[in-house]
Amino acid sequence: MTVVASSSPPVGTIHGVGLGPGAADLLSVRADRLVRGARHVAYFRKAGRPGQARRIVEGMLRADVVELPMEYPVTTEIPLTDPRYNDCLAGFYAECTARLAALAQAGEDVVVLCEGDPFFYGSFMHLHARLSGVVPVAVVPGITGMAGAWNATGVPITWGDDVLTVAMATLPEDELARRIRDTDALVVMKIGRNLPKLRRAVAAAGREEAAWLVEHAAMPGQTVTRLADATSVTPYFSILLIHGRGRRP
Amino acid sequence: MTVVASSSPPVGTIHGVGLGPGAADLLSVRADRLVRGARHVAYFRKAGRPGQARRIVEGMLRADVVELPMEYPVTTEIPLTDPRYNDCLAGFYAECTARLAALAQAGEDVVVLCEGDPFFYGSFMHLHARLSGVVPVAVVPGITGMAGAWNATGVPITWGDDVLTVAMATLPEDELARRIRDTDALVVMKIGRNLPKLRRAVAAAGREEAAWLVEHAAMPGQTVTRLADATSVTPYFSILLIHGRGRRP
Repeated sequence: MTVVASSSPPVGTIHGVGLGPGAADLLSVRADRLVRGARHVAYFRKAGRPGQARRIVEGMLRADVVELPMEYPVTTEIPLTDPRYNDCLAGFYAECTARLAALAQAGEDVVVLCEGDPFFYGSFMHLHARLSGVVPVAVVPGITGMAGAWNATGVPITWGDDVLTVAMATLPEDELARRIRDTDALVVMKIGRNLPKLRRAVAAAGREEAAWLVEHAAMPGQTVTRLADATSVTPYFSILLIHGRGRRP
Repeated sequence: MTVVASSSPPVGTIHGVGLGPGAADLLSVRADRLVRGARHVAYFRKAGRPGQARRIVEGMLRADVVELPMEYPVTTEIPLTDPRYNDCLAGFYAECTARLAALAQAGEDVVVLCEGDPFFYGSFMHLHARLSGVVPVAVVPGITGMAGAWNATGVPITWGDDVLTVAMATLPEDELARRIRDTDALVVMKIGRNLPKLRRAVAAAGREEAAWLVEHAAMPGQTVTRLADATSVTPYFSILLIHGRGRRP
């Protein structure tokens, strides 16, 4: 006779769900269903802020939803190069992982809201790496913020055999300039306080006339400005684009 | 007295709608609504084939839909470098544009089905450039095929300050090898008959162990293979990936 273990609930799944660039109707059908049906919804945010991912799903959540905001312990107060930055974030991600894993082990599914696509420069990846092999994890891809940005310009980003380079404005100025010189189409993210450096790098590469700054793509207040006319940007919601000019029959 | 022109219908809109990487529930909510509601649906395909874009929306179209397949006059029969290739395609795009513009001018909206994102290496861009300023054109961004591919591998594509390079396998071998050496994360598309050249370029860059080939991402028959184990690929449905290895607290 086989003795079956007494009824522990089946383990739940942690869903990393890409929300796309900002508009509620740019979630995928799969993401929309998961978000609307979720009992537990987790998301990253800066302390004291509503959080951009949470804002995208405003009005979509169940009335009895349980929300788990995960508040970054640091954002820009400690420089990236300081070892304390890494330690502080590693501890934070470990704590978030423990909370999510405990919910899954109690049989609950959790939807983790991710701006853009979860596997493209996102915070969820740090949880995904820690949760994998511990509890079931599933990922729903999303429309990237950069696709929202090039759509906002009304001009295609890449044609024919164009090379596209995606780089972060946190790179050193010389390295940025070298990358900008050596590509057909360009996307730069993480601009914020790096704007003056980025402008110098674009100018050094001789491409200032082709560079566009998109802020709040696919959101209320979307703007598209020539880089040459930009004086400041909204941190985290700005993307620089240079469109490719490849083969066009 | 002002004489109002007799009732001509309002001009319709041509919608370039991104369908995402392949699964029907990875259309955006906006795209899903447009596709299901459309009276006129246009799509590119190779002569004699059902067409990948059309396949994605199977079962979603209105019963009274009018379909406009747009069949490429050439695909690989004429080399890209032959001026006849360009002339032939230009004539084809002009003809497609005329058909769509005529529908819009008769007051009809048309949904043009686009795999992935319409502004990212897509054929619709050639119609968009010709239709803009002639009739109203709107674009719905989509999840790119490459996002479907990195999602299929279960591993994030970019971390921290990683540089991502997107290149076409149609580039010369030396240029491919140089690009592969000079990036953290890599996406290569348009592989098909260029697979042997691409393998040599990846090997020359010393990154064969890190390279993955994804075929039919987000579709039935999805496969993820080490490049080293690949012998042939399905044209148009294969993407090469090298994952970035950037900062991970």
